[in-house]
Amino acid sequence: MRISSRMLAGVAALGLAIGAGAKPLDQSGVEAAFDSGVSSADQLEWLKTMAAAPNHVGAPHNKANADYMLGLFKSWGWDAHIETFQVLYPTPISTAVELIAPEHIVLGGQEPPVAGDDTSGVAGALPPYVAYQGDGDVTADLVYVNFGMPDDYKALARRGIDVKGKIVIARYGVGWRGLKPLLAQWHGAAGCIIYSDPAQDGYGQDDVYPKGGMRPPFAVQRGSVMDMPIAPGDPLTPGIGATAGAKRLTRAEAPTILKIPALPMSYADASKLLARLGGPSVPNGWQGGLPFAYHTGGDGGTKVRLAVKSDWSLKPVYNVIATIKGATLPDQWVMRGNHHDGWVMGAADPLSGNVAMMSEMKAIGGLLKQGWRPARTIVYASWDGEEPALLGSTEWAEQHADELKRKAVIYINSDGNGRGFLNAGGSHDFQHLINQVMADVTDPETGATVAARARAAIRVGAYEGDKTDARLLAAAESGGDLPIDALGSGSDFSAYLQHLGLPVLDLGFGGEGQSGGVYHSLYDSFHHFTTFDDPGLKYGAALSKVAGRVVLRIADADTPTMRFGDFADTVGVYLDELGKLADQRRERDRKVEALGKDDAFRLAADPLKPVGAPIAEAATPHIELAALADAVDHLKKAAHAYYTAYADKNATLDPARRARLNGLLRDIDQLLLDDRGLPGRPWYKHLVYAPGRLTGYGAKTLPGVREAIEDRRFADANLYAGRTAKVLENYADRLDQARAVVEGR
Amino acid sequence: MRISSRMLAGVAALGLAIGAGAKPLDQSGVEAAFDSGVSSADQLEWLKTMAAAPNHVGAPHNKANADYMLGLFKSWGWDAHIETFQVLYPTPISTAVELIAPEHIVLGGQEPPVAGDDTSGVAGALPPYVAYQGDGDVTADLVYVNFGMPDDYKALARRGIDVKGKIVIARYGVGWRGLKPLLAQWHGAAGCIIYSDPAQDGYGQDDVYPKGGMRPPFAVQRGSVMDMPIAPGDPLTPGIGATAGAKRLTRAEAPTILKIPALPMSYADASKLLARLGGPSVPNGWQGGLPFAYHTGGDGGTKVRLAVKSDWSLKPVYNVIATIKGATLPDQWVMRGNHHDGWVMGAADPLSGNVAMMSEMKAIGGLLKQGWRPARTIVYASWDGEEPALLGSTEWAEQHADELKRKAVIYINSDGNGRGFLNAGGSHDFQHLINQVMADVTDPETGATVAARARAAIRVGAYEGDKTDARLLAAAESGGDLPIDALGSGSDFSAYLQHLGLPVLDLGFGGEGQSGGVYHSLYDSFHHFTTFDDPGLKYGAALSKVAGRVVLRIADADTPTMRFGDFADTVGVYLDELGKLADQRRERDRKVEALGKDDAFRLAADPLKPVGAPIAEAATPHIELAALADAVDHLKKAAHAYYTAYADKNATLDPARRARLNGLLRDIDQLLLDDRGLPGRPWYKHLVYAPGRLTGYGAKTLPGVREAIEDRRFADANLYAGRTAKVLENYADRLDQARAVVEGR
Repeated sequence: MRISSRMLAGVAALGLAIGAGAKPLDQSGVEAAFDSGVSSADQLEWLKTMAAAPNHVGAPHNKANADYMLGLFKSWGWDAHIETFQVLYPTPISTAVELIAPEHIVLGGQEPPVAGDDTSGVAGALPPYVAYQGDGDVTADLVYVNFGMPDDYKALARRGIDVKGKIVIARYGVGWRGLKPLLAQWHGAAGCIIYSDPAQDGYGQDDVYPKGGMRPPFAVQRGSVMDMPIAPGDPLTPGIGATAGAKRLTRAEAPTILKIPALPMSYADASKLLARLGGPSVPNGWQGGLPFAYHTGGDGGTKVRLAVKSDWSLKPVYNVIATIKGATLPDQWVMRGNHHDGWVMGAADPLSGNVAMMSEMKAIGGLLKQGWRPARTIVYASWDGEEPALLGSTEWAEQHADELKRKAVIYINSDGNGRGFLNAGGSHDFQHLINQVMADVTDPETGATVAARARAAIRVGAYEGDKTDARLLAAAESGGDLPIDALGSGSDFSAYLQHLGLPVLDLGFGGEGQSGGVYHSLYDSFHHFTTFDDPGLKYGAALSKVAGRVVLRIADADTPTMRFGDFADTVGVYLDELGKLADQRRERDRKVEALGKDDAFRLAADPLKPVGAPIAEAATPHIELAALADAVDHLKKAAHAYYTAYADKNATLDPARRARLNGLLRDIDQLLLDDRGLPGRPWYKHLVYAPGRLTGYGAKTLPGVREAIEDRRFADANLYAGRTAKVLENYADRLDQARAVVEGR
Repeated sequence: MRISSRMLAGVAALGLAIGAGAKPLDQSGVEAAFDSGVSSADQLEWLKTMAAAPNHVGAPHNKANADYMLGLFKSWGWDAHIETFQVLYPTPISTAVELIAPEHIVLGGQEPPVAGDDTSGVAGALPPYVAYQGDGDVTADLVYVNFGMPDDYKALARRGIDVKGKIVIARYGVGWRGLKPLLAQWHGAAGCIIYSDPAQDGYGQDDVYPKGGMRPPFAVQRGSVMDMPIAPGDPLTPGIGATAGAKRLTRAEAPTILKIPALPMSYADASKLLARLGGPSVPNGWQGGLPFAYHTGGDGGTKVRLAVKSDWSLKPVYNVIATIKGATLPDQWVMRGNHHDGWVMGAADPLSGNVAMMSEMKAIGGLLKQGWRPARTIVYASWDGEEPALLGSTEWAEQHADELKRKAVIYINSDGNGRGFLNAGGSHDFQHLINQVMADVTDPETGATVAARARAAIRVGAYEGDKTDARLLAAAESGGDLPIDALGSGSDFSAYLQHLGLPVLDLGFGGEGQSGGVYHSLYDSFHHFTTFDDPGLKYGAALSKVAGRVVLRIADADTPTMRFGDFADTVGVYLDELGKLADQRRERDRKVEALGKDDAFRLAADPLKPVGAPIAEAATPHIELAALADAVDHLKKAAHAYYTAYADKNATLDPARRARLNGLLRDIDQLLLDDRGLPGRPWYKHLVYAPGRLTGYGAKTLPGVREAIEDRRFADANLYAGRTAKVLENYADRLDQARAVVEGR
């Protein structure tokens, strides 16, 4: 589907700065030239090279990859360098997990080689572990806690089971990995095992590797369990760059390092533990894909030892930073990044996205050779240390915070990429731009546009019975812009969006590949990726074309490309959700009270499987949302008035007024920050988008209010309703100022 | 919860006929005396005796059980006899199922003994089979068809897989067993295997037998696969009693016997087949609980042989019929039944219900000894041959059709019983009566009333996230009468409700036991039942008290106990559903067309897992529902006007008018029949309640219209809308006549 002229109105036409002596290129000419520089064959070669050996932080091949990229970037005409930070990154010295009773079985250890996967037998991989757990050696009774999320502990409590002093075993899924040992710790557990249940990403989904792409019995998901909802980045230098001489906390002072030991586990191992658990049968929905009935354990019959000892030394991370200076607006930066470190070979995560980004850089280098120069400065970054804690990107953001706040226009992120449909998330003032780009890039499998494929998938999904957001379906059916997702965390955009207040886009294809089946395991390899995810890296090229267009269009626009009405309308939706959330929780509180009063929980329960009543709490009060509603009204009015004025006057704007507009609007998203941050986590300053304290990756919008309602901190809810109203008023005021400029006042 | 006076209004007060010389008992006195005659200890003894050996049709122990009951019934003061029919009931001479390629594995055979279950090793059990399949010996490629329901074949067709000439393997669940080979036959399959997937009733639910109650790997679900949605009962004598001299069809002429061979299978066996299937990975939702990724097969790589040879001789079924003649209205019969034949030991199904019914009979015998006599005649029946095809109850109904139509007031059914909550289904004019009884019987586990427990379960279920019908939840919360279920089929009520037009109630406790895990297997034993389902048979006694009260209250009421407004309002709900059904299908038809026009199915599909578009059909038209809406209006008006008049005049009615009312209302439900029956299945004559042609057990209400919309037979939909309107008008007219009697006109 092509973009309609109505949809284009309000977005700046492109102005291209052309170097002396070169033949001028118009927008479509630039993008066609860019596309011709994008090559799946290049990406295949880079991927094979970079995924040839383990590339975790500190691995020799990871440093080699940084150097390899540095050379390429320079050869393509970029001004490039490596910027190093010294971060606390623990690696295991020893790990042990064993069943002690009712019998002795030693578990754990490295994942074995798999026939047909050349890199699965190479040396140098770290054993399976989770980073930033708290070392220890504990032996205790085992309790199965399902996904280990808050509702799971409530379900256990209603059945009289607590985990104090015990080791919990939680399956991967539903919530972010790092919350599982954290919640275990909060509930007094002595240790935490996280395993991959075959229902989630093993044979419950499709054939397992190497026959198919899904998780084989002995594969383990590594990952970080740092308490990143407090703050990502080096745990010893929160808020500042982890340079060699930076002032550091001690490890004991660092708030984001867990206190209890934790290890990840395969389902081949986990089945040996879970099959031996006693205690009650699990609640509804807790049964996984292993071929026996799951029990909660906790009856003293299944003892496990869990021991981890780590090397807690500082290690270097290598960010590769490459720049092309803007011809006309050099102090406005368009930033683009993807990380290059993996957990083992890292073919899908992150190198599939990193090589797509490299293609963009090579293609832009090609444009440079044709004499093209961007209006704004373009900064590309291949980050190191994303996997442990978004280390490279966060430290760089903290180190360069002042300059970024003064100069950056946007940060565009990608991470692992795959076959299928474009997933786009980010700041809603850029929602229209990404929709335009989706309408201009061809899907490699179908020949339709990326936008048409996305719309078809949403519509057919809804037809087939998928739970589909009503706004999304309406947009897919009408041909209007598809709503993009709000961003939580889980990749390198976090510091840029939520700490610095830059607008952000996060882009990637997926939905048809099977890299999820080997996620963070030894088998996330070149062979797996090119067999089961994106054979031929066609979607690598598609990502380059999408992200490259976003970069080029923003870099070359004469005035900012945001459409503020989309942001305003989206915030309006979030506000409506807050009202409904409070109402629903109030209704539920009252229902618990009424059911309790009628003894309904006891009467409904099977006396042979006793389940107590949930804890009754006072009804959720009404929250003071009036000021916030007024602010949203102002925001909508200001955004739509600006849109109308700009559409009317755009053609007549003189350079001085364009410059004033660029000045007023470049940093408008930064007005959404409150420097006091969110309750209990001041590093997160954005009052519209945040990762949930108890979702980890998943976004919470209007988080100061929403999470306060969810956590029953009603004073905070009222306080943050006011603070959030204030930042939205500031944003709206700025739009009013911009409109005045457009209108020549 | 006690019944409120408002809820009691409109229901007849009880008039008790007391025999000469006995101390009169009032209603509560009769019921207290009845309760004191109900004994769980009795039921345990009877259950142990009757479940001691295989009791399928034709088994010596089944005949012994009939004789045993006959003796007891007589000893309790009942006028009892055994009534025998000669029915076509096939039993296996030989069964064979084996994997032929890619390797040879012999499967099938009898279920093995289990430690701790004394009866699991006894002789005389039939091998696992399904009755009324079509004998044959076929070898063919195997295709996994999920639950083998119509949507499953559509999903296969969209993936280019057909089953012509192949053997299908379907898992138990979702639809009735008998539809699976029937649909396979309709799609051209050569044979059908039906297996028990552990996700449905094995370790996916709880521990398996003997550690727990769920289905162990080697247990098989037997059952009938006769095409009972055409007609139940002896397939050679449709519509007439299968007496020795009855005119019979030949086996080849019998429309309800399948043409292809079929066998049931354990998951231990099925896993050997399914693990070897090639072809595409299964669609979403098709994966079961076995520990590998399921494939559809059908690629020629997995060949199976399936062979069945049966003894097709006539066999006797023994119905035990027991009567107490009414003192004042001997020609009005209150009927009560439960079957006594099982597939093997039949402890849960059916003997747990049968022994509860026996307790009622013994307790009523006790009342007789105290001089009590019912006003109406009470007829109890312990049916034979329910399992193969509702044989005993259907043949008896057909044989005694004329007398039943002239005399029967109601038929009250039960079948297997269990621990938990009362499930009540039936004719909605008796909805209020069963709600009153639920409020008067104590739940044995909680000490609350059966009604209070049911309400609590509905409310807590909704709170916990169960999908809950809004009317049901509203009733549970308000304390109003709980809606009862409409009845389809699957037990002995079918001929009485849908062929003869009697009102019916079907009653049973369940929801907490685990007899589902051994359903129709060798392990449905006394040991299993008393360990994992209803230890001590407390719920056996509860069922006796519920069903006994229903019998006694109807038998002794001076005027009919129905509340017609409940029926009228319920039919109004069904009519609303019809309108919505047509609208939804029209919308869906248009969506398929629109998605097809936009090529959305292709664009949304993974090209490596191709899925074609569904077949686009002309949009479902509007159905002529006006006459039906008028009829429902008349029905509601007539029912509520009768209620008002009766509440006003009840106290003043003289015996002559009561007699006229009894005459007018006894057979009012028979007015809901249309002698032409439903399209393609004339045996089913009821135009409000029917088993679905493609659900088997599940009810379809206003079936002539509803199924015609679903099947796109729009001319039938319009035709049956008119016919249904007519029967409802007749019913309403009769109510108007009854009101005239009440009002003395």
